[in-house]
Amino acid sequence: AAIAEADTVIGYVTYIRLVKELLDGKEVIKKAMAEELDRAIEAYDRAKLGKKVALVSSGDAGVYGMAGPTFEVLFQAGWTPESDIEVEIIPGASAINTCAALVGAPLTHDFCAISLSDLLTPWPTIARRLNAVAYADFVVALYNPKSGRRTRQIEEAQRIFLRHRAPDTPVAVVKAAFRPRQNIQFTTLEKMHEAEISMMTTVLIGNSNTYVRDGLMITPR
Amino acid sequence: AAIAEADTVIGYVTYIRLVKELLDGKEVIKKAMAEELDRAIEAYDRAKLGKKVALVSSGDAGVYGMAGPTFEVLFQAGWTPESDIEVEIIPGASAINTCAALVGAPLTHDFCAISLSDLLTPWPTIARRLNAVAYADFVVALYNPKSGRRTRQIEEAQRIFLRHRAPDTPVAVVKAAFRPRQNIQFTTLEKMHEAEISMMTTVLIGNSNTYVRDGLMITPR
Repeated sequence: AAIAEADTVIGYVTYIRLVKELLDGKEVIKKAMAEELDRAIEAYDRAKLGKKVALVSSGDAGVYGMAGPTFEVLFQAGWTPESDIEVEIIPGASAINTCAALVGAPLTHDFCAISLSDLLTPWPTIARRLNAVAYADFVVALYNPKSGRRTRQIEEAQRIFLRHRAPDTPVAVVKAAFRPRQNIQFTTLEKMHEAEISMMTTVLIGNSNTYVRDGLMITPR
Repeated sequence: AAIAEADTVIGYVTYIRLVKELLDGKEVIKKAMAEELDRAIEAYDRAKLGKKVALVSSGDAGVYGMAGPTFEVLFQAGWTPESDIEVEIIPGASAINTCAALVGAPLTHDFCAISLSDLLTPWPTIARRLNAVAYADFVVALYNPKSGRRTRQIEEAQRIFLRHRAPDTPVAVVKAAFRPRQNIQFTTLEKMHEAEISMMTTVLIGNSNTYVRDGLMITPR
């Protein structure tokens, strides 16, 4: 509905492609992967010209998405909520929600989301978090588990979890949930390094009560 | 869209009220608060009669919602995914997502959801989780923070967090996000016990870098 109302739609080229049926008659600005701040600057510039702008994020814009960088840019530009330019964050279903829905009911109990990307966060901070939630028996979703160059983090995460959880703890690796190349793999903590994991996947690790039955991953209440 | 396709709609009476514009011409079954398993049993019974059934949950059905109890009931009844009755979980935006969208961009970094209800989970398990994620500097959403009878848990949660985080850590208390009686309170960890907190609220506690500026709660990347 927000895209339908917009004059201008801005986003990462892949996300723009996902909403292409909604773009007729609108100005469309496609950006490359790393240009988060640039997308927000461009959105603000168009809004200042009086345009209604939809800045498209995937999943939930608030979860590791464009909401953060957007406010960063707006504050730097001297924007305040009292100005003429109104900003609305529209919540959505993040990868943890969509992947969970595809594999069964893994989030029936307490859960965490952790990004394994150490581009902006030092690895010791990430490792401390992995250790804490593995110990405290959360269901955990790993975002950005692995990329072409970054392959070590998912193996360290596995090693940390194996300190606290059984080798046969259920793990689901979900690629491109609800998108054309969707793929679901069920594995275990001990074998998750053998699964095909990329930037397009989210890894769901069960808690000590999670089980898989008939191809469904369930965490009891 | 799923409700539109359904012959029968089943849910907790309050959630049924939230979708009342979509119910024309459908069989509607309203249930009381505690009857989760009953709702799932009724849904299964109708499905066996050949009806298309929408079992309505609030937020995301997978997050502390009806997805878990539904599979529990189905497995007990001998259902398998190969049977004639197809089950689809439709993901949604959970309270953590909707509350975050209303207060700014608090989930730009790693986060957890913890329910403070000790009805099905022993308090020591919940306390251990609170302690682990407070220590490891997660943004945390507290679900079911308090009810009429259950008032002690939110104060214990506050005490645990104050062991690890500064007294001025930003806290947002959001009631009935995107619903008629929506209310947002900003407070701090040290003063959160003074906020009005009920079963209808979600409590968002920032990490050590979260700040509030111009009425927006932001966690930097």
